[in-house]
Amino acid sequence: MLPAGCRRANVVARDGSVLGSGSAGPANPLREPDRTIRAILAATDQALEDASLAGLARDRLIAGIGLAGVNVPAAFKAMSDWGHPFRELFLTTDMHIACYGAHGAGDGAVIISGTGCSGYAIVDGVHRTFSGFGFPFGDSGGSDWIGLEALRHVFLAIDGLGPSTELVGALNAHFGAEGIGIVEKLANAQPCDFGRLAPIVFDAANQGDEIANAIVENAANHIAALARRILQLKPSRLSLVGGLGTTILPRLDHDVRENLSPALNTASDGAIIFAREQLSAAVA
Amino acid sequence: MLPAGCRRANVVARDGSVLGSGSAGPANPLREPDRTIRAILAATDQALEDASLAGLARDRLIAGIGLAGVNVPAAFKAMSDWGHPFRELFLTTDMHIACYGAHGAGDGAVIISGTGCSGYAIVDGVHRTFSGFGFPFGDSGGSDWIGLEALRHVFLAIDGLGPSTELVGALNAHFGAEGIGIVEKLANAQPCDFGRLAPIVFDAANQGDEIANAIVENAANHIAALARRILQLKPSRLSLVGGLGTTILPRLDHDVRENLSPALNTASDGAIIFAREQLSAAVA
Repeated sequence: MLPAGCRRANVVARDGSVLGSGSAGPANPLREPDRTIRAILAATDQALEDASLAGLARDRLIAGIGLAGVNVPAAFKAMSDWGHPFRELFLTTDMHIACYGAHGAGDGAVIISGTGCSGYAIVDGVHRTFSGFGFPFGDSGGSDWIGLEALRHVFLAIDGLGPSTELVGALNAHFGAEGIGIVEKLANAQPCDFGRLAPIVFDAANQGDEIANAIVENAANHIAALARRILQLKPSRLSLVGGLGTTILPRLDHDVRENLSPALNTASDGAIIFAREQLSAAVA
Repeated sequence: MLPAGCRRANVVARDGSVLGSGSAGPANPLREPDRTIRAILAATDQALEDASLAGLARDRLIAGIGLAGVNVPAAFKAMSDWGHPFRELFLTTDMHIACYGAHGAGDGAVIISGTGCSGYAIVDGVHRTFSGFGFPFGDSGGSDWIGLEALRHVFLAIDGLGPSTELVGALNAHFGAEGIGIVEKLANAQPCDFGRLAPIVFDAANQGDEIANAIVENAANHIAALARRILQLKPSRLSLVGGLGTTILPRLDHDVRENLSPALNTASDGAIIFAREQLSAAVA
C-alpha cells in the first residue's frame, strides 16, 4: 500500500507497518503533469528500495495519493487520465489527507500552513475546501507569500519608499546580490524560491525587525481569519499543520490558539486511511 | 532610423519625419532574449512595410531601442551580445526613452504607470532609476499589480474572508469561470494576463465598488509616493506617462497633481532623441 504526500511516499504493509519511505519533487500537476508523475514514481521507487523491496512489481501496490494542486479540476483530470502502473490508484488533495491524518476519517478540520495556506473541514460528512488557490493570488499566510512580501519591502526600501531594516541586509546576503541584482537571480523563480525566504523573515522578526514582524503578523492574521471561518462550521477538532505550523502558532491570537488541537497523525498516515477507505468502498 | 518602444517600432527619416510604424508583442529580455529579438525584428519589418520600404536592407537603419527589462544587467548584456543586423544599435531602458520623450534630452523626470510602474529622473546630468523591479515583487501601481490584487480579493471573497462585491462577478464574467475554475484559466498566466484585468477594476471602481476603489486608491498612493520621492530631487519637470497615466491621474493627491507637467512627446520620440544623441557621441 502506497500513500504519498505531495513529495513523500511510504510503503506500508497490510497490517499498517511502514516498510520504507522515499521523496521526490515538488511538481505542479496543473502545469507539469508529466513531471508530477515522474516525481510520484521516483518517490515510490525510493520507498520500495528503502523497504528492501526494490524488485517488487508496482502492480502489487495500492496507491493512496494526496496531491497539492488537484483541487483544480483540470489537474485532477490530468492525473486521473494517467495509465498508472499500480493495482489501484486513489487520488485526492493534500488537504484531504492532512485532515484524515489529523483526526482520522471522521469529522474534523485542518489548516495547512506550508508553502501555501489552505483549509479543509469535514463536518457531518460534508467535505469543504478553503483557500488553496495557489501562488501568487491565493495562499496568503504560506511561506511563498511571506517571501514575496519580504521582497516587496526590500524593493520599496531601495527606492526610499519604505524603511530599510536588517531584513534587507539578510535577504541581500541570501542572494549574494542587492537591488536589481536580486531581480536577476529571480529571473526563473518558482514559488518555492520565494518560500525559501520565509525562515529569514522569521529570524529577522524574532530579532525585532519591524518589517519582518509586520509580515509575520499579517500571515498570522490571515491564518487566524481562516481558522475563525472554519470554526463557524463547528468541526469536532481543528488542527494547524504544515511546515510553518509550529513556527507561526505562537503568533496566533489567543481565541484561535485555544481552539486548536494537535494533529493525531501525519498526512502520510491520512493517505493510508484514505486508501483503505476507498478500497473498502470499491470492494463493497 | 529606428526607434522602438517596448512593443513598437517607428521608421523615421533623417529629417525626423515618421515614415512608418509597426508593433510586435511583448517579450521579457531577461527570460526570453530570443523572443525579444524576434519581436524587435518583426516590429521593424512591419514598420518598413508600412513605410513602403519593405525591401530596405536592415544595415541601412540606425536602431535606438528602449526596452523594458534591460535595467537588469544580465538582460542588458543578453541584448548587447545580439549580432544585430542594423548599421548601429543603441540600447537603453524604456524608462530612459520615456523621459527623453517627455522632456527632451535635458533635465526632467517621468513616472511610467503601464503594465508595471517605474520612475526615471535626470537632474544635473545624473540619471536615476526608480522601481521597475518587475512583477510580482515590484511595480506596485501598474496594471499587472492591480489585476493581481483584484484576484486576491476574489479568492478571499470565495472563502468568506473578504467582502463579495460586484468586482467578483465582473471577473467571473471575464474568465467565464469562477473560483477554482479561474485558477485553471490562470495555469500558464503571464504578468500581462493580470494586467488585462485592470480595466475591469477601474470600471468597478467608477461604479462605486468598495474593493475596486481600495485597490485603485492603493495604486494611486503608490504612484504618489513615488512622485514625492522623485520631486525631492527637484527635477525641472515631472510627467506621468504610460498606459494607466491618464486613467489614474484624477485619483492622485492634489500636491502631486499640481507638480505634474504634460509629456512633450512620446517614448518613441524619446528613442529618436536617444539614437541621435548616441550617434553624435559615437561620431565625436
